[in-house]
Amino acid sequence: MTEQNLQIVLASRPVGRPSPDNFQFVQAPVPSPGDGQVLLKIRYLSLDPYMRGRMSAAKSYAAAVEIGQVMEGGTVAEVLESRHPDYAVGDVVLSYSGWQSYALSDGTDLRRLDSQQAPVTTALGVLGMPGFTAYAGLLTLGQPKAGETVVVAAASGPVGATVGQIAHIKGARAVGIAGGPEKCALVRDVFGFDVALDHRSPNFAEDLREACPDGIDVYFENVGGKVWDAVFPLLNTFARVPVCGLVAQYNSTGPFEGPDRLPSLMRDVLTKSLTIRGFIQREFSAQRPDFYREMAQWIAEGRVKYQEDIVDGLESAPEAFIGMLDGRNFGKLIVQVS
Amino acid sequence: MTEQNLQIVLASRPVGRPSPDNFQFVQAPVPSPGDGQVLLKIRYLSLDPYMRGRMSAAKSYAAAVEIGQVMEGGTVAEVLESRHPDYAVGDVVLSYSGWQSYALSDGTDLRRLDSQQAPVTTALGVLGMPGFTAYAGLLTLGQPKAGETVVVAAASGPVGATVGQIAHIKGARAVGIAGGPEKCALVRDVFGFDVALDHRSPNFAEDLREACPDGIDVYFENVGGKVWDAVFPLLNTFARVPVCGLVAQYNSTGPFEGPDRLPSLMRDVLTKSLTIRGFIQREFSAQRPDFYREMAQWIAEGRVKYQEDIVDGLESAPEAFIGMLDGRNFGKLIVQVS
Repeated sequence: MTEQNLQIVLASRPVGRPSPDNFQFVQAPVPSPGDGQVLLKIRYLSLDPYMRGRMSAAKSYAAAVEIGQVMEGGTVAEVLESRHPDYAVGDVVLSYSGWQSYALSDGTDLRRLDSQQAPVTTALGVLGMPGFTAYAGLLTLGQPKAGETVVVAAASGPVGATVGQIAHIKGARAVGIAGGPEKCALVRDVFGFDVALDHRSPNFAEDLREACPDGIDVYFENVGGKVWDAVFPLLNTFARVPVCGLVAQYNSTGPFEGPDRLPSLMRDVLTKSLTIRGFIQREFSAQRPDFYREMAQWIAEGRVKYQEDIVDGLESAPEAFIGMLDGRNFGKLIVQVS
Repeated sequence: MTEQNLQIVLASRPVGRPSPDNFQFVQAPVPSPGDGQVLLKIRYLSLDPYMRGRMSAAKSYAAAVEIGQVMEGGTVAEVLESRHPDYAVGDVVLSYSGWQSYALSDGTDLRRLDSQQAPVTTALGVLGMPGFTAYAGLLTLGQPKAGETVVVAAASGPVGATVGQIAHIKGARAVGIAGGPEKCALVRDVFGFDVALDHRSPNFAEDLREACPDGIDVYFENVGGKVWDAVFPLLNTFARVPVCGLVAQYNSTGPFEGPDRLPSLMRDVLTKSLTIRGFIQREFSAQRPDFYREMAQWIAEGRVKYQEDIVDGLESAPEAFIGMLDGRNFGKLIVQVS
């Protein structure tokens, strides 16, 4: 029996929390590369919160995945066959091949990886899109200064963990928020945050206030929800709020119950001269060379650590993805495809 | 009988819309200047929406006016007596003397005005704080580009009118929102906005959508309320929202009825990479020399026009101020004190 290409396609759009029914497994023939193409065997698939947005038809910064289309995603792959002058069989590359075992590429989305320099999985995490989101968002928009207080949620995840560690490198205090004692221990003991707070604590808002005696200068927003409610009253004049994600509300369906919090937000935006700024990392693409150089150095020096949560087999992807939206992963979530 | 100093002090803090009861008229002796001081006779008092904030005890960017204290405000005054080396009797100055007929100053808050260059009342409007709010907020934060669409409310007021005219100078389209047909005519025919829309129209949201076929790139927020609701869905990717006022909600007392609009706001901040930025003009003080030079030139060239609404007598100030919060003024509201 010939090898087949296992693909996971979007079967239906989730209403609220996704369920396994929203995904469908498909067996397709392994494709053959045309002139100028390579055939890739996928080794690792990245699972990221932004994918929840791609499952919905609502207008966003990127087109939705169509029903019946292979789910999108960043991947690390090996070149199995090459009809492209720049890539040879055996090359390991970063690609955007999605939730499948094999894929073709014309080379435009590829970046060759050097496994001698760093484990190739880091190209999906700390040295990839999540790490760059933290780097560009914090440095360009958050602009932490020495002695300031930076707060980030999902602090055990690949974006949050990197935000806190870069904040430290810039001389700021880092306060991390995570779900449960194990994640908080990771945030404090491995990533070195000054304080790690459990958002499940009944006293969370009070804990945060005590952890930020001088208020909050930068809140790196990647979750939304009740963390925002606790952060909001503590923001200092001229505080910056880069917004790269709202995972706590991705599964919500509006309208949202009152009271209406918008007037209070706008009042504080005005009276505290706040900056709230949404962003997608690719807006800052010009900074990527600096990012690769600086981040690789920080990792080599032990100043930035990372944690990966690798699950086995492409079949596990839907369940692992749903679990991530519930906060069940422990570090950067990656599927080992082959 | 000697001349007295009529003062208007804050008698009580308003709950919601201010009423005449919140103000009290006081007769005090005209003060005598000490060494290094001048005695000022106030000629004009500026009335501005930010004063509503100073009447409340809530934490804001400036301390509240205390009960029994003279209401604060920008003024144009004449030097009656001088014991200050830099000021001579007869000098006309911009001061921050508040709601009264006479005041002392040590000179630190004074700027000498040249009535040959421009009518001295413009120092309270287009060539003063409101004009500078428009200039700094639009150019530094709004950053309009040629061909973009700039929307501003209270467009017949001194900030809004200036925003639209600077937008034009930068090659952007200017869409102004005002209350009623007379103000809309002023916005269109005098200030030269491309479109003037009446927010009292039952079809206002639809009118705005038709007036902005390419969406909105800059929304200069100075009112809040239902204008925001109509603007919000039309904001383009990378739209900028400088926030300098929220006059429509200054008189509101929370909590505000649901549904909660915050999650939708944050979703759009994220998916459209929006920037929402509160500011007070004094943050940009370093730009004042450029402002005085450029704005004076634009006025001289007829590229920026202005409209003043001058009411007679300090006794009229409370009623005029309350009316302004209801939108009853027609252009920059100034009280002729003497």
